[in-house]
Amino acid sequence: MRSVTQPPVVIELPAWADDFVAAAVTAPTDEARMRFVIELARRNVVARSGGPFGAAVFESGYAQPLAVGVNRVEALNNSCLHAEVVALMAAQVRVGSFTLRDDGISTRTLFTSCAPCAMCLGAVLWSGVGRLVCGATREDALALGFDEGPVFAESWSYVEDRGIEVVHGLLAAEARAVLAQYRAAGGLIYNR
Amino acid sequence: MRSVTQPPVVIELPAWADDFVAAAVTAPTDEARMRFVIELARRNVVARSGGPFGAAVFESGYAQPLAVGVNRVEALNNSCLHAEVVALMAAQVRVGSFTLRDDGISTRTLFTSCAPCAMCLGAVLWSGVGRLVCGATREDALALGFDEGPVFAESWSYVEDRGIEVVHGLLAAEARAVLAQYRAAGGLIYNR
Repeated sequence: MRSVTQPPVVIELPAWADDFVAAAVTAPTDEARMRFVIELARRNVVARSGGPFGAAVFESGYAQPLAVGVNRVEALNNSCLHAEVVALMAAQVRVGSFTLRDDGISTRTLFTSCAPCAMCLGAVLWSGVGRLVCGATREDALALGFDEGPVFAESWSYVEDRGIEVVHGLLAAEARAVLAQYRAAGGLIYNR
Repeated sequence: MRSVTQPPVVIELPAWADDFVAAAVTAPTDEARMRFVIELARRNVVARSGGPFGAAVFESGYAQPLAVGVNRVEALNNSCLHAEVVALMAAQVRVGSFTLRDDGISTRTLFTSCAPCAMCLGAVLWSGVGRLVCGATREDALALGFDEGPVFAESWSYVEDRGIEVVHGLLAAEARAVLAQYRAAGGLIYNR
């Protein structure tokens, strides 16, 4: 017989993230915010606390992120914990709603250091963010050996048709450098 | 200034689920296991603890599920918590690995009362399950007013090409009845 109660799933950032996030103040530009999530990804690689991916939800009018995420797949034994999912879940807990839909005062944007996989693109769609800004591209992730799942041109159209503005390839070279750093460090490609 | 530490995200089943799951013993057939996840969905509707969706990971050789999930989007303010994601995360925590890949002894199958949305289909791909068995169809979910996201014929091919066996529409009429029950109860269509 199996144990009869199902333990809760608890999702936390790595220990290094607390201080980093507490100190986070970004200029209200897409570039500054992208640099921030790339730095999250880089620190995740250096600390060996997960895959080379970072994400954060920012709002217009706030210098600090609403919530951040880094890849936690290996560390927390949970293949759903891509950086985007971690950030979106945390942002919703913080606002106390299952949607981050614009409240008329602020617009919420997900920044991610790499274009989302199929799972994360779906998660973005349900999250209520109004914008998605991506660093490295799907091709960059594939080149590293990560699968990105069934994401097609019409997948992006589907998301944009539902009112989500998408920016591709912002500071892609800087974002790509973190992927290269992960490869050089011998990081695990967990879904090859 | 925002609060500086990001609180953990905690994912738990509704209170009614403990007793139900503890008592769960199914025949080792696809039909019996599908009836079990449809019943999870039905109880979630009756208890008003979430959307009309249930899922579970079963292994060959075990009468009890490895882990179960019900939709927790509204209850836990988390748009990622579709039944499939809840079940897959819990199953991985239980086995202590980020993959449910067959260990040569057992094959792990995700049963879901309704065909997965784009996010959940991606989650299935990364989870390591070897089989996916679906009840109600995408069209059934759309008819209720739920969006299913960018899932296309080639999305299914993509998943099957990577070795995941997919069964569509098992006991679809019984699964559909739970969707109708949710609609009749005035349940929220949270991503309309």
